[in-house]
Amino acid sequence: MAPALFRKLTVIGIGLIGSSIVRAARAYELVEEITIADRDPAHLERARELGIADRYCLDAGEAVEDADLVIACVPVGAVEQVALAIKDHLKPGAIVSDVGSVKGSVVRQMQPHLPAGVHFIPAHPVAGTEYSGPDAGFAELFQNRWSIVCPFEDSDPAALDRLVGFWAGMGANVECMSAERHDLVLAITSHLPHLIAYNIVGTAADLEKVTEGEIMKFSAGGFRDFTRIAASDPTMWRDVFLHNKDAVLEVLGRFQEDLFALQRQIRWGEGDKLFNLFTRTRAIRKGIVTMGQDAAAPDFGRSGKK
Amino acid sequence: MAPALFRKLTVIGIGLIGSSIVRAARAYELVEEITIADRDPAHLERARELGIADRYCLDAGEAVEDADLVIACVPVGAVEQVALAIKDHLKPGAIVSDVGSVKGSVVRQMQPHLPAGVHFIPAHPVAGTEYSGPDAGFAELFQNRWSIVCPFEDSDPAALDRLVGFWAGMGANVECMSAERHDLVLAITSHLPHLIAYNIVGTAADLEKVTEGEIMKFSAGGFRDFTRIAASDPTMWRDVFLHNKDAVLEVLGRFQEDLFALQRQIRWGEGDKLFNLFTRTRAIRKGIVTMGQDAAAPDFGRSGKK
Repeated sequence: MAPALFRKLTVIGIGLIGSSIVRAARAYELVEEITIADRDPAHLERARELGIADRYCLDAGEAVEDADLVIACVPVGAVEQVALAIKDHLKPGAIVSDVGSVKGSVVRQMQPHLPAGVHFIPAHPVAGTEYSGPDAGFAELFQNRWSIVCPFEDSDPAALDRLVGFWAGMGANVECMSAERHDLVLAITSHLPHLIAYNIVGTAADLEKVTEGEIMKFSAGGFRDFTRIAASDPTMWRDVFLHNKDAVLEVLGRFQEDLFALQRQIRWGEGDKLFNLFTRTRAIRKGIVTMGQDAAAPDFGRSGKK
Repeated sequence: MAPALFRKLTVIGIGLIGSSIVRAARAYELVEEITIADRDPAHLERARELGIADRYCLDAGEAVEDADLVIACVPVGAVEQVALAIKDHLKPGAIVSDVGSVKGSVVRQMQPHLPAGVHFIPAHPVAGTEYSGPDAGFAELFQNRWSIVCPFEDSDPAALDRLVGFWAGMGANVECMSAERHDLVLAITSHLPHLIAYNIVGTAADLEKVTEGEIMKFSAGGFRDFTRIAASDPTMWRDVFLHNKDAVLEVLGRFQEDLFALQRQIRWGEGDKLFNLFTRTRAIRKGIVTMGQDAAAPDFGRSGKK
């Protein structure tokens, strides 16, 4: 058997992503020992019941002692607290990472507090479901999904290699890019879609002329796909928008501009322009299916043909 | 064996919906004989190869002769042509219906041309996939989905019963409402979601700073769900927006207003307001799953746990 990549892994925060990491790290034998830290006693107790780690700590500082790899799996708004809690307990040479959907802010919050001699390399697995909590995780979550690693120019190559190897070991495709680029790319591929989904579900709920019952009943016409995204964890997403404000507002501005153009085309009956856009968007869908980032099965008819 | 509901069914237009209807009508033994009409010889030939009907006609007029139930399954912008093509060939007492995603415009386009003695009752199955054409259809498409029937105040009760029975026989739940109400309800549950999806995919494609490759790669963060909807048939959707202009512009106006409020909350860092919206939208998702209009399985991690 190949030796494990890391001896001791500590995951701080045992939600969907944290609990998927510990399950995958164990399933694929990437580490020898796993410690979970969570400041919520109920979550920690649930993780213990599930038996997905070796040690369970309420205190993050205690949990990271002697760890070779520490991954903060908490909402982006809570990473500075994590850095403060662990900074005096980290082993020299330990790798510290995270899984936040925003990277620039995580760097600004964590880096100043972490001691020299510790390798801080932020990361973000572009994977998830609409569920949260310790029960929501599963070992296959990262399979064939992209995980983005954001090293600094002076990051230690060996530490970077090991972290990349860890994500690859969980089945992810890994791409490295700067934190700044990450935040722009994710603003359009993830943050704006969530914002739009939350917004349309809110708009629908507030319409006086259409009841919630009608909206739910007839949701198979397209609306239900938005509600799935809009069921994602509220704390996590509040933090994403607050911490990636500039990039989100930039792509949102573009979206608004385009939407007004579309609104005008509808008002003036410019069918050709609508048709051209609707044809162009099909090609992008085809690319995503070709790249294996979504299934080609006709998913609108979910209860029908598979 | 129970007698078939209708002796002769004619379906005009053999795309996703038309070909699903003929498959379902045969599978559930709702009719004795099926005629398909399509003005596209390639589509008609493909339907013949699939062997899903008894007769195949290029000419809609010829196809409806002697039919007891005629269903126009063409884009909303083409129903007037269908009415003109069939009006002199319909049997007295025949039921004429459609499946368009807009109902007011269909009534305005078809009703003036149809002869007295024919029962015209528009309908709309709220079901579909992102695929189109004769091959895309399947008999189970309408199972446990809602089909909306829009009778007039003076519609013949027996004819209405038979049409409702036909949809119920294909496994659909049937709800009756006015064409006007239909167009408002669908504007929010279907038309606006499609418009938003087309728009965001267009915005993403036009960003200079992010490549199409990056957008596709990292689409699992939310974007890919929009691309699925934005891969729907361009002709059908162009017609929907042109023919349900007023209701679409009304709900789009509300959406824009709400989106500007959200934009402002992000700009000013109003986390509590964001959190409240994101919590509220979860409840609607729960309702949709409870009503059986979507699966509860964690679908973001599509290749993972089922």
